[in-house]
Amino acid sequence: MTLFATRFASDGGTRLDGAVEMIHGSGGRATTELVRTLFHRHFDNAYLAQGNDQAAFDMEAARVVMTTDAHVVSPLFFPGGDIGSLAVHGTINDVAMAGARPLYLSAAFILEEGFPLRDLERIVASTARASRDAGVPVITGDTKVVEKGKGDGVFITTTGVGIVPAGVNISGDRAKPGDAILVSGTVGDHGVAVLSKRENLTFETGIVSDSAALHGLVAEMVAAVPALHCLRDPTRGGLAATLNEIAQQSGAGMRLVESAIPVKAGVLAACELLGLDPLYIANEGKLVAICEKADAGRRLDVMRRHPLGHDAALIGEVVADPHAFISMKTRFGGSRMVDWLAGDPLPRIC
Amino acid sequence: MTLFATRFASDGGTRLDGAVEMIHGSGGRATTELVRTLFHRHFDNAYLAQGNDQAAFDMEAARVVMTTDAHVVSPLFFPGGDIGSLAVHGTINDVAMAGARPLYLSAAFILEEGFPLRDLERIVASTARASRDAGVPVITGDTKVVEKGKGDGVFITTTGVGIVPAGVNISGDRAKPGDAILVSGTVGDHGVAVLSKRENLTFETGIVSDSAALHGLVAEMVAAVPALHCLRDPTRGGLAATLNEIAQQSGAGMRLVESAIPVKAGVLAACELLGLDPLYIANEGKLVAICEKADAGRRLDVMRRHPLGHDAALIGEVVADPHAFISMKTRFGGSRMVDWLAGDPLPRIC
Repeated sequence: MTLFATRFASDGGTRLDGAVEMIHGSGGRATTELVRTLFHRHFDNAYLAQGNDQAAFDMEAARVVMTTDAHVVSPLFFPGGDIGSLAVHGTINDVAMAGARPLYLSAAFILEEGFPLRDLERIVASTARASRDAGVPVITGDTKVVEKGKGDGVFITTTGVGIVPAGVNISGDRAKPGDAILVSGTVGDHGVAVLSKRENLTFETGIVSDSAALHGLVAEMVAAVPALHCLRDPTRGGLAATLNEIAQQSGAGMRLVESAIPVKAGVLAACELLGLDPLYIANEGKLVAICEKADAGRRLDVMRRHPLGHDAALIGEVVADPHAFISMKTRFGGSRMVDWLAGDPLPRIC
Repeated sequence: MTLFATRFASDGGTRLDGAVEMIHGSGGRATTELVRTLFHRHFDNAYLAQGNDQAAFDMEAARVVMTTDAHVVSPLFFPGGDIGSLAVHGTINDVAMAGARPLYLSAAFILEEGFPLRDLERIVASTARASRDAGVPVITGDTKVVEKGKGDGVFITTTGVGIVPAGVNISGDRAKPGDAILVSGTVGDHGVAVLSKRENLTFETGIVSDSAALHGLVAEMVAAVPALHCLRDPTRGGLAATLNEIAQQSGAGMRLVESAIPVKAGVLAACELLGLDPLYIANEGKLVAICEKADAGRRLDVMRRHPLGHDAALIGEVVADPHAFISMKTRFGGSRMVDWLAGDPLPRIC
């Protein structure tokens, strides 16, 4: 059963000065009232108004992409966003990274008993706002409740579908030796912003999360120079994990130039303080693009004209290497490997 | 980032005699090894093998449906199924209840630190088996890890997309006075099966969950007599919640006949023992169908020939009632209201 979409006539409603109770997950009147008072009101759209356990829409023949992400970020609210906006941006971005136009989202909420309804409303409102701003509606959803101590406030799983424009063929296995590696802006902002809010780390960096929906930027990149090889958003695991994934898929190595990778001074300072490497820190509004070297200049121009790409930079190149290793020329002129992350300095970053 | 789909060359792998650790959620090597050892191996299909953060597929022009469900059932394993098979069946059924043919699923897992990997493997294998048996592949997914005490073993959110055949128009607002109300089999099996496993309720009922994918049954029903008005699976909140939802959407009342509603003797006995009403108990392999009375006989014949519909029954009719009330002629010849459930006798049933 899906309970975002229930229409009903009761004049009641859920008082928002309370907290989530187990009864809100019953599937009965309390569930439908919560859904109406919170979800239906904020997400209101014609698809939800169909009032069924699934949303229906007409679609033309197309190459379709589908992606899903569970969001468990802690804390739920952080500088520059919250779990709701993050969930919308994260899933839109995974659709966009196929060069696709995101069409629709679903959102499933797992609520912990005792979570304040006012905080839930902030999250639902933020989810709805992010979805509206991006032009990608949440058309179906679900709410479940677990006992206190069996969850952590709110978890949100979003799923997105979108359409790949004709002629676009972007995949992580298409990086070729000689290709240019571009990044759309500074790395590490999201991770450091979340970290700065964690209860036992009270330093203030002034850094806000870069959480943003990148489909507009991608649409301009694809329209200007369709022949993109790879696109990926360096979230959990950071730039290092993303480049290693693409290297493995493509069976090619990469050579990066550390001084070319944009990092904000505050992010760098926080990382030095905490012994972290910004290359391993999550981003939520950045992308890595890999394309023919000949296209790189034009593509960078397009990216830099977009508000979400004005710090775009060429950070390295794809090289022939059967081991698919990633090496980096350091600021000090040496060279080091950029391996997968072995530990996890930042659990629950998204 | 979506991490079901990562291909990689490492010869390592996750030893399955351990437990889920925070590092499995890092997005680094431990995550990709877990994904490869467990998820990729069991779900293996051409879509996951694309190795990207989203799965791509070609689709013809169609009316498409999309639905999502978070699954938090407790206990994770119960007679007749587990959270994995339940998640697949539940989402396939929500697609099928639009009369649609389910095409693809996504699955996002939220894992609790310390959860035994062997149990996780049982769940992943069961999820994959249910998906394979139903012919609806899990084409993309995600895994996240939360600290011990911040989750409850495993939560799974599944999302499904499917295609509505031409000429089919099924919606909860299409029930009309005079329509027949059919149910595909006995009610209450799933709820009682889960209840029988709850740690503090040790009675043995011999009842197993009815958890099953209903799209095959629906396809035959739609092919035989396309003019179905409403279809819905009476899950959380049971038959009572589902009929009240449809009544509200349609602005019509219903009159049920208690003696016509199929209930297994063991379910009835357990309900009497525990002071529960089988009409409010969740089902996971049953559907309610509402159609013209003239079609009811033929439709019942079709349902009864299908293994998942052999106990199908006509249980009542839609009546004109601006209050959208549901009344029931009891076994003792009286009449009572079948209202929404006010309390929640069975939290976390799905």
